[in-house]
Amino acid sequence: MEMNELLKMGKEISLLGKFLTLASWDQETETPEGGQEGLGEMIEYLSGLYYAKMTDPVLKAGLEDLNQQELSVRDKAIVREMKKDLDRMAKIPQNEYLAYQAILSRSQNIWAKAKRENNFDLFKGTLKEIVSYEKKFAGYTRTDEACLYDVVLNQYEKGFTTEKLNEFFGLLKSEIVPMLKRIQESGIDYKKPYEGKVDADVQEKYNKKLAEYIGFDLSRGVIKRSEHPFTTNLNRNDVRFTNHYYEDKLESALFSTIHEGGHGMYERGVSKDLEYTAVAGGASMGVHESQSRFYENLIGRSKSFWVPIFSDLNQSYGLTMDLDEFMNYINRAEASLIRTEADELTYPLHIMIRYEIEQMLFNDEIIVDDLPKVWNEKVKDFLGIEVPSDAQGVLQDVHWSGGSFGYFPSYAIGSAIASQIMFAMNKELDVEGLLLKGDLKPIGQYLDKHIHQYGAIYTTDELLNKMMGESFNPKYYVDYLKDKYTKLYHLN
Amino acid sequence: MEMNELLKMGKEISLLGKFLTLASWDQETETPEGGQEGLGEMIEYLSGLYYAKMTDPVLKAGLEDLNQQELSVRDKAIVREMKKDLDRMAKIPQNEYLAYQAILSRSQNIWAKAKRENNFDLFKGTLKEIVSYEKKFAGYTRTDEACLYDVVLNQYEKGFTTEKLNEFFGLLKSEIVPMLKRIQESGIDYKKPYEGKVDADVQEKYNKKLAEYIGFDLSRGVIKRSEHPFTTNLNRNDVRFTNHYYEDKLESALFSTIHEGGHGMYERGVSKDLEYTAVAGGASMGVHESQSRFYENLIGRSKSFWVPIFSDLNQSYGLTMDLDEFMNYINRAEASLIRTEADELTYPLHIMIRYEIEQMLFNDEIIVDDLPKVWNEKVKDFLGIEVPSDAQGVLQDVHWSGGSFGYFPSYAIGSAIASQIMFAMNKELDVEGLLLKGDLKPIGQYLDKHIHQYGAIYTTDELLNKMMGESFNPKYYVDYLKDKYTKLYHLN
Repeated sequence: MEMNELLKMGKEISLLGKFLTLASWDQETETPEGGQEGLGEMIEYLSGLYYAKMTDPVLKAGLEDLNQQELSVRDKAIVREMKKDLDRMAKIPQNEYLAYQAILSRSQNIWAKAKRENNFDLFKGTLKEIVSYEKKFAGYTRTDEACLYDVVLNQYEKGFTTEKLNEFFGLLKSEIVPMLKRIQESGIDYKKPYEGKVDADVQEKYNKKLAEYIGFDLSRGVIKRSEHPFTTNLNRNDVRFTNHYYEDKLESALFSTIHEGGHGMYERGVSKDLEYTAVAGGASMGVHESQSRFYENLIGRSKSFWVPIFSDLNQSYGLTMDLDEFMNYINRAEASLIRTEADELTYPLHIMIRYEIEQMLFNDEIIVDDLPKVWNEKVKDFLGIEVPSDAQGVLQDVHWSGGSFGYFPSYAIGSAIASQIMFAMNKELDVEGLLLKGDLKPIGQYLDKHIHQYGAIYTTDELLNKMMGESFNPKYYVDYLKDKYTKLYHLN
Repeated sequence: MEMNELLKMGKEISLLGKFLTLASWDQETETPEGGQEGLGEMIEYLSGLYYAKMTDPVLKAGLEDLNQQELSVRDKAIVREMKKDLDRMAKIPQNEYLAYQAILSRSQNIWAKAKRENNFDLFKGTLKEIVSYEKKFAGYTRTDEACLYDVVLNQYEKGFTTEKLNEFFGLLKSEIVPMLKRIQESGIDYKKPYEGKVDADVQEKYNKKLAEYIGFDLSRGVIKRSEHPFTTNLNRNDVRFTNHYYEDKLESALFSTIHEGGHGMYERGVSKDLEYTAVAGGASMGVHESQSRFYENLIGRSKSFWVPIFSDLNQSYGLTMDLDEFMNYINRAEASLIRTEADELTYPLHIMIRYEIEQMLFNDEIIVDDLPKVWNEKVKDFLGIEVPSDAQGVLQDVHWSGGSFGYFPSYAIGSAIASQIMFAMNKELDVEGLLLKGDLKPIGQYLDKHIHQYGAIYTTDELLNKMMGESFNPKYYVDYLKDKYTKLYHLN
């Protein structure tokens, strides 16, 4: 097969995939209650066409053929990624794949209702089916992985096995837990720097401006509302994210904007040359989260970032916050219930809870019925607090309803990569100076140049090596957290 | 072929069509400027799949087969409608069909820009291509029609030929033009009953309530904003329409809500039994417009409709309008530039202008370059006013940018049918009494029972005959207009 022919077939698969993306964007942001069933039927049907295209024997033969040929770096990566996807898909029987897609097209609404009504039982049956399919599919597609959970971990971050993650999380835990204890003993309690509420429409307007400020221009994107913030894209010129505006928790939407904006800028920075190919997305979910968390935490929680725009924020919200009080508040560390609202220090503990629970599910140590109990025990164990309701506990995250087991570690991996990136970037740019000047463009350009443009051509380690001559290394992240919280809570 | 097999193939076509609907909904309401090109590629690709399904020889043979069999009324209608669509599609070469879809996927934005910038030249080239394709396709698909324009007319309203429409419009013109003259001579000039502006968000909130009031519940639908109001649907439980809120023209959005709501209630009233078939839509565009214009004019412009809700309208908008002044204003007749803002009496004149121009285009009496000039002459001729700009003239309507030549007469046909329906309904219901009580449910149920449930099983005349024992008859419409405007302007 000629490469051009493969690109043509790949483009058709990509275009079908984009319709599925559009349908789920609509499902999350627009479809009324009555329409969910009909949309589910649409998704089910198109998933069938997608499966058929992916398992086309002509495509398979062509990939085998091209795999033997001399190809450019880009084309080689495209063949590699398509082969990976196809090989996986081919191992899953069509009827099971479609039955699972049908469940997934409905499960998110079932979960949302269960969360809204704080009733795990409403979601339990569906979650059992999802877990069962995920385990079954992991079994089908397993090759040399040491355990079943490694199979799903591999889907999001190649090479980050249970063994490697145990080491990474072990290191984090040994540093974070004692530090959190010292913080709690310090007696310092940074207070919320504002009172009252700010209307959601007012927040939305400001957050759109903030998105543009960090570099997410709206002529190439959409910002809308949904229950849970997320980013998606139809192409590099149509990247979309959502937000949720809590009237008495202004920082929630602000940091969601910066976080999702980070994801969005990755998608729109991918080279035009990669469009409609299997490498048009991010290198891995860990690298994707490194972009969102780089912006959210390393940029967005730094004082230099807020200096030039803080008076405008105050004015837009009709507030008179003090910048230093604001900085202390948005960086404070405290044990809390909700992952997405957690501070930088305790955030990895939330991830570890999910990571351990997923492992136990995949190792048959627990079943879905045990989840609320196990969840609450883990929260008590890691964070020392009681979970008052499943809505604030085991039902809080969207991921499992979409079948995304093995995803959570990406957040922690991403945070660690973000610190590596900042270290490297500071060698080339005066990041703080740029932030103080309100000039974020060179930061975005650095990321475009070293990360975004390559899409999924390179692996995580290849990208990092190209950028800084070093593979994944959590040391930068640990050093960063230690330095930051030692200063913030005067722990020396 | 078994009927079940046909239904299965029909469902696949329907599902693909729904994705195209979803894409154009997104294009109109969400896609950012940068994303239009990518969305166009998606639409082009899926149109290809749609074309392939529609021209599948197995389907064609199956339809021929089923056409010979004894079938239920529903199944017979499904076979008839599918055969009609397929026969048409089969006559158009695939490459030309796809090239035309590609133009249409981009043309609406080009038109919108031309209108925004009041520059016909920006749109001219695209419009030439559209007209050329429409004429070519009409030539391909022509059977026994007396002229080329009859071919496109037939697509929207079977049997309403140029000959029949000339008669219909001739009658209307002979009644309306003298009446408009007498109104202008009467010296009566009903003034706007409010001053100042009402915020778009406030209007949006009230209009959603108004939609629910007439029977369009939002658990089965969406109301969003777009440049031009329109209605679409993904299924009978997910019907969507848009609105546009002018801050100093409150009646604009109010009557768009009632109009589009009328379309929407048709779509959601179609029997569940017809879902995913070729008869799931309205009987014809004329019947569709009869529903929107029935609600908009016969219900929405009657005093009884506003009596129970007028104080709430005033309160919601922070106004103190007088109901009688409001009624006079929303029913006043005056020569004006914009069709969608025109009153009931002059509205058909706007339709006739377009009807005559389209005829001239299809008969090669004029070319696209002549359109602005011819438009302005016709407006002067029919309405006696000067057109100050193409944006308020030949560029005002969306239809031509979507290739909808032959559609405009549906509005006038719909208005005429609406009067027939009201005549029939009044024999069974005390419509005025119901409106005064604020009980619109029986009105919706009457329409569901006599019109909506049947989808496209019956033709326009069959529906009317079933309902009132009479075919299409413009007399009811003419009588209604004469009676209404004689009273409103004291012409006796």
